[in-house]
Amino acid sequence: MKIKLPFNEALNTLITKKSTYLCIGLDPDMDHIPAHLKYEKNPIDLFIKEIVEATQDLAVAYKANLAFYECEELNGWEALKNLCYMRPDDVLLILDGKRGDIANTAKKYASTYFDLLGADAVTLHPYMGYDSIEPFLDKPERGAFVLALTSNEGAADFQHLQIGTTSLHQYIAHTVEKWNVLNNCGLVVGATDVEGLKILRRLIPNLPFLVPGVGTQGANLRDAIKYGRNKTGTGLLINVGRDIIYAGQEKDFATKVREKALKYNREMSELMRTSWDYM
Amino acid sequence: MKIKLPFNEALNTLITKKSTYLCIGLDPDMDHIPAHLKYEKNPIDLFIKEIVEATQDLAVAYKANLAFYECEELNGWEALKNLCYMRPDDVLLILDGKRGDIANTAKKYASTYFDLLGADAVTLHPYMGYDSIEPFLDKPERGAFVLALTSNEGAADFQHLQIGTTSLHQYIAHTVEKWNVLNNCGLVVGATDVEGLKILRRLIPNLPFLVPGVGTQGANLRDAIKYGRNKTGTGLLINVGRDIIYAGQEKDFATKVREKALKYNREMSELMRTSWDYM
Repeated sequence: MKIKLPFNEALNTLITKKSTYLCIGLDPDMDHIPAHLKYEKNPIDLFIKEIVEATQDLAVAYKANLAFYECEELNGWEALKNLCYMRPDDVLLILDGKRGDIANTAKKYASTYFDLLGADAVTLHPYMGYDSIEPFLDKPERGAFVLALTSNEGAADFQHLQIGTTSLHQYIAHTVEKWNVLNNCGLVVGATDVEGLKILRRLIPNLPFLVPGVGTQGANLRDAIKYGRNKTGTGLLINVGRDIIYAGQEKDFATKVREKALKYNREMSELMRTSWDYM
Repeated sequence: MKIKLPFNEALNTLITKKSTYLCIGLDPDMDHIPAHLKYEKNPIDLFIKEIVEATQDLAVAYKANLAFYECEELNGWEALKNLCYMRPDDVLLILDGKRGDIANTAKKYASTYFDLLGADAVTLHPYMGYDSIEPFLDKPERGAFVLALTSNEGAADFQHLQIGTTSLHQYIAHTVEKWNVLNNCGLVVGATDVEGLKILRRLIPNLPFLVPGVGTQGANLRDAIKYGRNKTGTGLLINVGRDIIYAGQEKDFATKVREKALKYNREMSELMRTSWDYM
């Protein structure tokens, strides 16, 4: 019997082993995939397969945003299942659905993503509180990244609201820290708000951060690593999606995708070895 | 060309026409549907079809929680599509996915639910702010119910946090009111917290409330109507799911489902005609 590590420990082990923080966002969009694939029976599936084959040694994790599979109906579901079954053991799979519902419903989602599809982790909305999160936390080897500070403009609408002496996203982050009994909770923290990321890492030293915003969204990779990693240099996943997966548009697109992924992988490796005196 | 009303107006027109607030929650669970259906090719699809045929004159809306379709894979997707295409014009269809993502992704979800499936409304998480909601608001005839005060225990974790002189859920409700430019925004407000519902209706007199919590979750129907409706006696959808759809387990289950739905429909009609001196 293979003994599985708690999710956060497995993540940190892989980060160290692969010497990178790279998470590749696999969000296939029919408007952007290479033209020659569009005439195939399941373009999305072929697109994802080629990318996974070309990048699996370079990434710690793949993150699949469920919106991009759902909109392709049966083809999307097939591609998602194939991704779940084909990805190698040493690349974690995060299903990014940002779900959040009452316990009865959350159990359905958890069973679909963890038991049926075999994902390693999910992303969740915090707003409905503990009983909406708990069904995703009962197996230590399965993780949940809860939204704290997101990378979009609208993050300013509610996430910075003042709660006593703290802010809403900080309050939520502290609460998620308390829920981390089995060492399988993390936070989503965007790299677009460097100051917010920096403060949150100081407040929450140990939870892993899943960091979107680098790449097409324009955030700085160096800052994301400098301020996002924990004191042992792990606890960080930096998601890059569009900038990698649409790197090529010709028949050799997977080569271009690998080149771009390799570039990110190496930049991250170098920055991982950099010490900054900033604490 | 058929001119479509803004969602909130269409909703209120139907509430008045059908003289009820009944929204039936169509969340098919293989563990609870009648045993004889389980041997059919697509049990979920047959289950939903019989219920819709038996109840369409009694309900203002159907609410389908997407978790219960997704977990059934291709059968679930087929059942969901059939529900979307078969339901009559005078029953609104709300897809309850509680989504919330960056604009690029929100557009995908909106296009799937509104353009591909033809739903009338969705439910959304507020946490990521305006740009995560906006893609669902650009067509006046399509509505969005944003979570304000939910019916589960975990609602207490964040939704009552103090923000200046108000609470988080009230602050969010006020913000959604500002987003209601095209008259197509509503709020999800649970009936399990009667005091919360009462105060929120006073603060937000005009937005429609989608109210879960009655039925299996145990909230009081009379209070939900007394405190949830607006001053003209509309602006309210009361969702009842499990208590109606699992009313029968034999081959005649649809008859039992209709009886239970009729009971709720009539109770709501009566309470709709009741005047309370409470404001």
